[in-house]
Amino acid sequence: MIEDDHPPQPLASTALRVVIAPDSFKGSADAGDVAAAIERGVRAAFATTSTPVEIDLLPLADGGEGTLDAIVAAWDAQLHFVDTVDAIGRPVTARYGISPDGRTAVIEAADANGLPAVSDVPLQPLAASSLGVGRVLRSVLARGVDEVRLFIGGSATTDGGAGLLTALGATLLRRDGTPVPLGGGALGDVARIDLSGLDPSARRVRWRIACDVTNPLVGPEGAAAVFGPQKGADPDDVAVLDAALARWADVLEAEAGTPLRALPGAGAAGGLAVPLVALLGGELEPGWRVVADAVGAASALARADAVITGEGRLDAQSLGGKVVSGVRELTPASVPVIVLAGEVALAPDAVRAARLIAFSIAPGPRSLDELRAETLDALERVASSVGSLLAAPSLHS
Amino acid sequence: MIEDDHPPQPLASTALRVVIAPDSFKGSADAGDVAAAIERGVRAAFATTSTPVEIDLLPLADGGEGTLDAIVAAWDAQLHFVDTVDAIGRPVTARYGISPDGRTAVIEAADANGLPAVSDVPLQPLAASSLGVGRVLRSVLARGVDEVRLFIGGSATTDGGAGLLTALGATLLRRDGTPVPLGGGALGDVARIDLSGLDPSARRVRWRIACDVTNPLVGPEGAAAVFGPQKGADPDDVAVLDAALARWADVLEAEAGTPLRALPGAGAAGGLAVPLVALLGGELEPGWRVVADAVGAASALARADAVITGEGRLDAQSLGGKVVSGVRELTPASVPVIVLAGEVALAPDAVRAARLIAFSIAPGPRSLDELRAETLDALERVASSVGSLLAAPSLHS
Repeated sequence: MIEDDHPPQPLASTALRVVIAPDSFKGSADAGDVAAAIERGVRAAFATTSTPVEIDLLPLADGGEGTLDAIVAAWDAQLHFVDTVDAIGRPVTARYGISPDGRTAVIEAADANGLPAVSDVPLQPLAASSLGVGRVLRSVLARGVDEVRLFIGGSATTDGGAGLLTALGATLLRRDGTPVPLGGGALGDVARIDLSGLDPSARRVRWRIACDVTNPLVGPEGAAAVFGPQKGADPDDVAVLDAALARWADVLEAEAGTPLRALPGAGAAGGLAVPLVALLGGELEPGWRVVADAVGAASALARADAVITGEGRLDAQSLGGKVVSGVRELTPASVPVIVLAGEVALAPDAVRAARLIAFSIAPGPRSLDELRAETLDALERVASSVGSLLAAPSLHS
Repeated sequence: MIEDDHPPQPLASTALRVVIAPDSFKGSADAGDVAAAIERGVRAAFATTSTPVEIDLLPLADGGEGTLDAIVAAWDAQLHFVDTVDAIGRPVTARYGISPDGRTAVIEAADANGLPAVSDVPLQPLAASSLGVGRVLRSVLARGVDEVRLFIGGSATTDGGAGLLTALGATLLRRDGTPVPLGGGALGDVARIDLSGLDPSARRVRWRIACDVTNPLVGPEGAAAVFGPQKGADPDDVAVLDAALARWADVLEAEAGTPLRALPGAGAAGGLAVPLVALLGGELEPGWRVVADAVGAASALARADAVITGEGRLDAQSLGGKVVSGVRELTPASVPVIVLAGEVALAPDAVRAARLIAFSIAPGPRSLDELRAETLDALERVASSVGSLLAAPSLHS
């Protein structure tokens, strides 16, 4: 071998490990398509250099719409379908995912208690029930899973999870021993809960409930006052529901011996998680973290040399427990986390303080509609530029 | 010393050398302001890391408006002012720059023969003369310079540089020995040139003429046909001027013994450079190269670890001899050249093929007017992101 002035060819073992871990661009592209577009750009950039690259695709979600798809795709698994009922008792098909090892189930509660599914008829804020969610849970429990990851939000119900608990085998009783009907409005009559019929596996599994609001169950910031109106509750309904949830909290607290009313997140999805937390050891967590755990994000990000994430709009909310800040949290401090966003709406010093590197995908002057229409092409373009910079030989010498 | 797991602090000698060498963003910001905004962003990014940085500011220009300012600023010199005449003989003040060593003069011809200065009166395409440019050249020759860098373009004249040559001491004569009046229209009468009165220093200096068009002097792609109309020439005037320039070329070719009519660039600025090329050894060069030479760009770029350039719009023209492609040409192949642009109007594969890395400064959906209004802030923002990426420790390990 003769030494010369040519730069040494990197060995395959020095390949740059790039993890592509975006959120969806809401209204424009789901996380899988976003990740694929970024990958195209990065691969094209590295293809023109001698720097080898290893790419991990890790489409993420924040627990909202698209979460189940993202996790099942990451597992390379299939969706399962189950017949249940919607918030007003009509037949509906819900989805769930089972991890390849059969131990973990993932469910989006809104499949069975979601608002869009019941928007074709007048909303029934007092009667709407989470019974259908409980039926889905029964199906997954029957599969013998060890852990259930339940994504809540977007619900039509304000029943404090009473319907869910009923579907798992509990009975809500009035003072006179007669059963309490479904729906949040009736919870004011609850005197006690009969758990003798509870599905035994409901006590055995680990319940992880993903929610991204911190509202308490009752009061001016509670489930009825804040989210009731969008579910059709007028001021009288809100008062009824808030009082009913307070009563429900009393009964559950008496049963569980732990305070529930002020628990942050207890007000999510009309209080859906409350019985799981009070009676079955359920844990409330940020949605991004439950997703990240489900897809093994922590180990992938820990090995990265560079991470590319993204979301429709990078703003103050992004830093408060969404995908982008979650990715940053799971990535070693010395590794750059690059955010590709439709809009970068944070000041540069805030971006740096969050240890992020942000680029907009806008290739020039564009209206919002124009930019949405070219989201994937624009992502591929800016990912190619980022890739070219990552691959630049002079930065690796 | 105890070895530990902390990454080693880079030594000062390993500082990343970043050269910031942008064009102006035409209509939004001059090259100096663009470079300063980029520097602010890069410095802020590196300030949050332990990676040291050395920054060279090298605001460039493509030979058009702003060129003289950019060069004089790079020289840290002062502008000089000289009384002369405009294209129609009215008094006007022109500027020039002298390099710190006193050897090189820089002039923008349009100060003395520019179109805007005479747009307050009806245009005089046949009579307009470059005499004022020649008077400026005489002033700089009187300073004893060795080299004159003359930026041409934006002219109101189509006189084949006859006025310029006259100001340097030549006399244009008719067949009957009477002098030919100023203006391109009269050139059809030229029979010969009397060079006995020529300023001797005009033969001694090196003439470098910067122009960015490749039109020949005469014919359908020539100075009169292509640029005459915007200087007020109607079709009859164009015919007169084209014939006059052809005659002028004959006379100069006879004097010089070299062909001129087909020389690319001879048609720039109404043929302004033709006498300098024919009689005084003048060289036509792309504007960016003359600017780059004037500010010492080649040596700065040769030492760079990363280069950030920029212009208002990155498009196919950018690749054909403008600042951006010039910067790429002068930068070692292994060193990334990052283009920050108001709009990236090239396909990603064309950007990569040109060995460029392009980012738009648009932080999200914006109209052109909105983006222009925030050009400097937007530049600082995206420069901060690029800087953060350049400074990322994991890329330097």
